[in-house]
Amino acid sequence: MAVEWKGDGPGLLLQLDRDAPRQLGHQLQEQLRAAIRAGALRPGERLPSSRGLAEQLGISRGLVVDTYAQLYAEGYLVSEVGSGTRVADRAEATAEPTTADDSHSGAGSAPRVEHPPRRFDVDFEYGIPDLASAPVRDWVWALGDAARLAPATLMGDEPAPGDPRLRDVLAAYHRRVRAGASIPERTLVTTGFRHALTLVFATLAKHGIQAVGLESPGPRDHDRIAERHGLQAVPIPVDEDGVDVAHLHESSARAVVLTPAHQCPTGVALSPVRRQELMAWAEQVDGFVIEDDYDSEFRYDRQPVGSLQGLAPERVIALGSVSKTLAPGIRIGWIFAPPTLVDGLVETKALTSRGAPALDQLALARLMESGRYDRHLRRMRTTYQARRDALIAAVDEYLPELRLTGLAAGCHAVLRLPEGTDEATVVAEAEKRAVSVRGLGNYQLGNVGAGTPGLVMGFGNVNESAIRRGVRVLAEVLDPGQR
Amino acid sequence: MAVEWKGDGPGLLLQLDRDAPRQLGHQLQEQLRAAIRAGALRPGERLPSSRGLAEQLGISRGLVVDTYAQLYAEGYLVSEVGSGTRVADRAEATAEPTTADDSHSGAGSAPRVEHPPRRFDVDFEYGIPDLASAPVRDWVWALGDAARLAPATLMGDEPAPGDPRLRDVLAAYHRRVRAGASIPERTLVTTGFRHALTLVFATLAKHGIQAVGLESPGPRDHDRIAERHGLQAVPIPVDEDGVDVAHLHESSARAVVLTPAHQCPTGVALSPVRRQELMAWAEQVDGFVIEDDYDSEFRYDRQPVGSLQGLAPERVIALGSVSKTLAPGIRIGWIFAPPTLVDGLVETKALTSRGAPALDQLALARLMESGRYDRHLRRMRTTYQARRDALIAAVDEYLPELRLTGLAAGCHAVLRLPEGTDEATVVAEAEKRAVSVRGLGNYQLGNVGAGTPGLVMGFGNVNESAIRRGVRVLAEVLDPGQR
Repeated sequence: MAVEWKGDGPGLLLQLDRDAPRQLGHQLQEQLRAAIRAGALRPGERLPSSRGLAEQLGISRGLVVDTYAQLYAEGYLVSEVGSGTRVADRAEATAEPTTADDSHSGAGSAPRVEHPPRRFDVDFEYGIPDLASAPVRDWVWALGDAARLAPATLMGDEPAPGDPRLRDVLAAYHRRVRAGASIPERTLVTTGFRHALTLVFATLAKHGIQAVGLESPGPRDHDRIAERHGLQAVPIPVDEDGVDVAHLHESSARAVVLTPAHQCPTGVALSPVRRQELMAWAEQVDGFVIEDDYDSEFRYDRQPVGSLQGLAPERVIALGSVSKTLAPGIRIGWIFAPPTLVDGLVETKALTSRGAPALDQLALARLMESGRYDRHLRRMRTTYQARRDALIAAVDEYLPELRLTGLAAGCHAVLRLPEGTDEATVVAEAEKRAVSVRGLGNYQLGNVGAGTPGLVMGFGNVNESAIRRGVRVLAEVLDPGQR
Repeated sequence: MAVEWKGDGPGLLLQLDRDAPRQLGHQLQEQLRAAIRAGALRPGERLPSSRGLAEQLGISRGLVVDTYAQLYAEGYLVSEVGSGTRVADRAEATAEPTTADDSHSGAGSAPRVEHPPRRFDVDFEYGIPDLASAPVRDWVWALGDAARLAPATLMGDEPAPGDPRLRDVLAAYHRRVRAGASIPERTLVTTGFRHALTLVFATLAKHGIQAVGLESPGPRDHDRIAERHGLQAVPIPVDEDGVDVAHLHESSARAVVLTPAHQCPTGVALSPVRRQELMAWAEQVDGFVIEDDYDSEFRYDRQPVGSLQGLAPERVIALGSVSKTLAPGIRIGWIFAPPTLVDGLVETKALTSRGAPALDQLALARLMESGRYDRHLRRMRTTYQARRDALIAAVDEYLPELRLTGLAAGCHAVLRLPEGTDEATVVAEAEKRAVSVRGLGNYQLGNVGAGTPGLVMGFGNVNESAIRRGVRVLAEVLDPGQR
């Protein structure tokens, strides 16, 4: 099978670039490795003697000896007394990257997520802020300021819960703006909402909790994240007062994930009565409420409702991030934890990922301390209010018979469709016309919480004329005869 | 129990600052919340009528009505027909932060990790690069450059595996410098080594692997991380040729975590024969080798040994990070994955944390593309070589009878102690003299791999005169009579 390799080697071995003489050894190594990987040199195949190869290539024998030694150390070659140097059995041609220098063209099972997102003329994507308004300039200013302030130790491993200054600032901000009862000692910095939720689920599972209630309809993927951590995901229906606490009582769940300020996706706020019932439930089952405060900063008609965490800091785990307020790409989030869970959360975080970069954390603290964060939020509130008004106006004009709900806050609303409308057909027809929108059904867990059909209309990253265009297309789709 | 609250309220309610008239409502709300949390207003207690309180405070009745409505919406108050507005049952004084504005002084179970690190004159801490040399200026340049290059979409949610440009650059770098067979399609960006290891363990567990071999002595905490993901941690002894593959064969492990280039902490390199045996084992058990390439960039006497991943990309999962090359605070790491695990790893990452910030990822790509990364490594290699030489010289001078091992690479070595020396006593005595060092035993899993006693001497973040001072102290501790 293995061919004795004599005389001139494969062409690639001769492609040494003599204008870079000190690199000859590296060139030789790399080409031998490539030849082995590509199968040009087969397992068991004997290499020429170092003297022979040196003569043939017109290089020093020492260079060849060093090269063989290196590839021997790396496991590409084996060396046996009496039989010279051979290609190792395990160094066979296996992977698709056939040469080390041409791997971009290597085949490979590119994962789905690699596909570029489909392009639409209008994309009512949910949960994305206006990316063109991301305060990149402010952020770079804050990073520079942080670097100027940063002691050398900042670049080392930080305390596991996160940068102390940022935790101070986040807790104070939550108290001030969200009427929270957060304190820095119980604040953890994460790399965003998902990281926070992962840490919470993992910690609750270790705390003996086996099932977690999830709103249905509710945020996507939370069931998969829960199941990853061995928690059973229990769908809990949502009505116009928010999550149905009576269903929680009937379930085995001892924790529940909620979006109380502006329910995702229906947009309702958890009613005062439900808030009381919920807290009573948590106390009764010795459980926890996980408060996802994802878009409370943008509220248009009235003052933001205070955080549940302020009401019962020992029962509520409040999660937040800058993904909606600044940009998802910043990747900073936080947890305001009850006293009983702090140590468990910190341990989980320390063991699974050390979290966000030191400089970024300090930069966010500086952005908030300097007032730039608030200024950005005020600016964006104006932007989003205009888009919301454009959405209302467009629906009034093109779809006057339909109702928009969940408009009090955030960057999305729900367009309620006539009873009996098939969401999937509407979505598919809209896509054909280059308008992307999602049906409410996408947010349901199983069949729980199924109600009237509707479309979730994210307006965070769509400008006003696109909103108008998009709604006009939806009107055509919904009632082609009329228009 | 609950007192009817009449006439003048508690003092705090009267502290309205009339110079900021538009803030009066907020002041009133905040003070009522604080009073409820502090227990000054008890559950069930009835609040004064809105008219009465308005008169008493000399403010408009509407302001009081709005305030009550807000606190009702937040769950602090309940409102019942016939009995007026009362403090809600659940809004009892619970948490230590007794007032919302004074929470810094709030008691609270501050987790251990909050304690400031003990200060030593000399700290031979393992695994920390020279923090004062962290290229903060280069990093800020790269962040600024990245911001200039970044399209707005960069600030949105990136592809789950990580920034495509950084994955290109990392894979190419690994091929060039570490003789890897990495390709961008199988490269994931993480927030550091721990995050990478967490993703790998979680994915292997889902892949049906139940036990993972860990070097003993070996890196700390890996057993706890493995167990968190439901993997049994099996200690595998290490000798002067690296991990003992025969023990792997006897174990139930189908995966093993290795530090082949410079074993942590012993400093040995995995021998060529062992490399072959290891790859044969992985093939035989249909398993995986997790290659922790933590400090291979710093090698002093010979060229770096190539990455195992280059040898068998379908069996080796190579992990790396910039924690040793730049600074731990940067928090970027990566995974070069085998084709069979890419999809699972990407899914795990997408569900558990979206990873590193967009700008930071592009900044690292720019740092590497611009040559600044290599320049920094060259500079640090000189620094570390000088520290290593200082360590050798100091041991020669003060402890000539002892042997240093594991010096060929990285930023630590092992000082072998005389047979029978009690490591713990030496460590404790050194600490009393303000020198911090760790015993080899700290890196053992159970009793596996126990050998001659030794001290792990990290010299990455200690300058040359401190190294000399520290070794002199160790000499005093080890042989007090002689000196």
